[in-house]
Amino acid sequence: MNLFEKIKAGDICSIARLISKVERRDPEVIKAIKEIYPHCGNAHLIGITGPPGVGKSCLVSELAGKFREKNRTVGILAVDPSSPFSGGALLGDRARMIELAGDKDVFIRSLASRGASGGLSAAVSDAADILDMSGKDLVLIETVGVGQGEVDIARLAHTVLLVLMPGYGDALQAMKAGIMEIADILIVNKADLSGADEAVAELSTVQGFQGMREGQDKWVAPIIKSSTLDGEGIEDIAGAVLKHFEYVKEQGFLRKKNRDRRTNQFLDIFTQQIRDEFMRLVKVDAGIQRWVDKIGDLELDPYSASEQVIELLRNAREQERDSRKRTRK
Amino acid sequence: MNLFEKIKAGDICSIARLISKVERRDPEVIKAIKEIYPHCGNAHLIGITGPPGVGKSCLVSELAGKFREKNRTVGILAVDPSSPFSGGALLGDRARMIELAGDKDVFIRSLASRGASGGLSAAVSDAADILDMSGKDLVLIETVGVGQGEVDIARLAHTVLLVLMPGYGDALQAMKAGIMEIADILIVNKADLSGADEAVAELSTVQGFQGMREGQDKWVAPIIKSSTLDGEGIEDIAGAVLKHFEYVKEQGFLRKKNRDRRTNQFLDIFTQQIRDEFMRLVKVDAGIQRWVDKIGDLELDPYSASEQVIELLRNAREQERDSRKRTRK
Repeated sequence: MNLFEKIKAGDICSIARLISKVERRDPEVIKAIKEIYPHCGNAHLIGITGPPGVGKSCLVSELAGKFREKNRTVGILAVDPSSPFSGGALLGDRARMIELAGDKDVFIRSLASRGASGGLSAAVSDAADILDMSGKDLVLIETVGVGQGEVDIARLAHTVLLVLMPGYGDALQAMKAGIMEIADILIVNKADLSGADEAVAELSTVQGFQGMREGQDKWVAPIIKSSTLDGEGIEDIAGAVLKHFEYVKEQGFLRKKNRDRRTNQFLDIFTQQIRDEFMRLVKVDAGIQRWVDKIGDLELDPYSASEQVIELLRNAREQERDSRKRTRK
Repeated sequence: MNLFEKIKAGDICSIARLISKVERRDPEVIKAIKEIYPHCGNAHLIGITGPPGVGKSCLVSELAGKFREKNRTVGILAVDPSSPFSGGALLGDRARMIELAGDKDVFIRSLASRGASGGLSAAVSDAADILDMSGKDLVLIETVGVGQGEVDIARLAHTVLLVLMPGYGDALQAMKAGIMEIADILIVNKADLSGADEAVAELSTVQGFQGMREGQDKWVAPIIKSSTLDGEGIEDIAGAVLKHFEYVKEQGFLRKKNRDRRTNQFLDIFTQQIRDEFMRLVKVDAGIQRWVDKIGDLELDPYSASEQVIELLRNAREQERDSRKRTRK
């Protein structure tokens, strides 16, 4: 069996090896992704996000255990987009997951930013595809934080969980960052602490402010209290996750969600390749060199320069269309 | 006087107003930036980065004071790229800068990520241009962290300071993240704590590992111990900053640094506009819609799709060149 067949058979070492390459953005990974692509599209991708310290890792472990009880295979990607200086906590958290580690139908992996600009979100997407192809029914993608990077990563998912805790008081902040808009299930974790009901009330108020969801989506995100100490709410969350996926499929949103994800993935890859192509051209093409010098020497501002190139591309597209029309005649 | 003239005259309210627009990525800002662009290029941009808690804010205040003694006008941009949940500390730190606030030749401003994807680095660049045009001799750009985001922002600067502290032991981590490569001055702050000499030795070792700097650059980053308690090292750092700028100018690197910065700025703007253009086309052009559907339905992988479009662009460029040649004949 080659690597590709081994991954399809769910071989853990092969999955891990390819995800490592994906994390390093190894150029040879592109070939593998092209092969994997047509075999994806079966897994339910679930994003779990929220500020540090609200207990996401424990919650993810508990949820994974609950899904295993329901005979679903599970992949977990724990994403740490923070600076390499603060990467320590994550592995410690992972240790808590060790109770799942004996189960060969659970695959757990941390992904960190390895310094490649904008590469983390691409790596997470590719890693999710690998787990998808390996036959995992559910892929849990845990991100730390609620900034733009997390919103970008959460957008991969079919179902997004926002985890908060009592006394945090940051539901409004989450709304500002745009994460409330894309959260399908709202969770007040550590509900054993005092203030859990107030936190639920606050979330409910913010949800009221926020108005309609995008497009035809009429889903109202349930607000669920949970505690990993006594297992409160875990069954409810697992149920809500599966119910949301049914809703997405029944309403015909699945195709749109997948299409939006793939369009963004394409645009990320395309803009990166266009940068690479441009940097290559600057080195070999004197005309482009002179033009870049004009920007560097402040004779042409970058906004006008960009408009000029976009205009050129528009014209090229129209010319191509015209010439096609003429050929037909 | 219009806004533009007021900024050129150094009017603090006008500067603040335009930077706020820049931070929101207000579309009308583009017009202003186009106007500002030819009046930039006089300021010395200084990036200060390092992990949280090493005392960057105090150090920046002290440095700003030192430069004011030397009769230089100073702008300070404090960048907080972290999630909106953890934005609290920054304003507290800023309070320490209040002693500078009475001085009209110092402009201090915090910039935070407002949820616009990839927008922070663009906002910092534009804000630095605004301070440049307003006549500030030096613009200090302070970022929290040493991840890729910070490296991107530090690349704007002509001179980059990496600040660490005793007992941190993270020089190797900084090297991994690529920040050691671009640091022009290495600082062990809080040198009053024990272990400062060991930290200097560690930095020196890591510097040895790291080998040659990019291109013809023979600058060896000095390692300076500092303490904002007794002012140790502040004069040395200020001196090293000015010396590095002289070196950059003498060696003819200034134009290359500015050109690299502007090329990256152009590419950021261009790739964003190409995304916007593409999303607009998807909505109105049935051909592009069908093509995107193929990616979404997993019939075409995004890497191959990107290669196809790049190939199209290459052909369009060559056709354009050929037709120009033919016209000349």
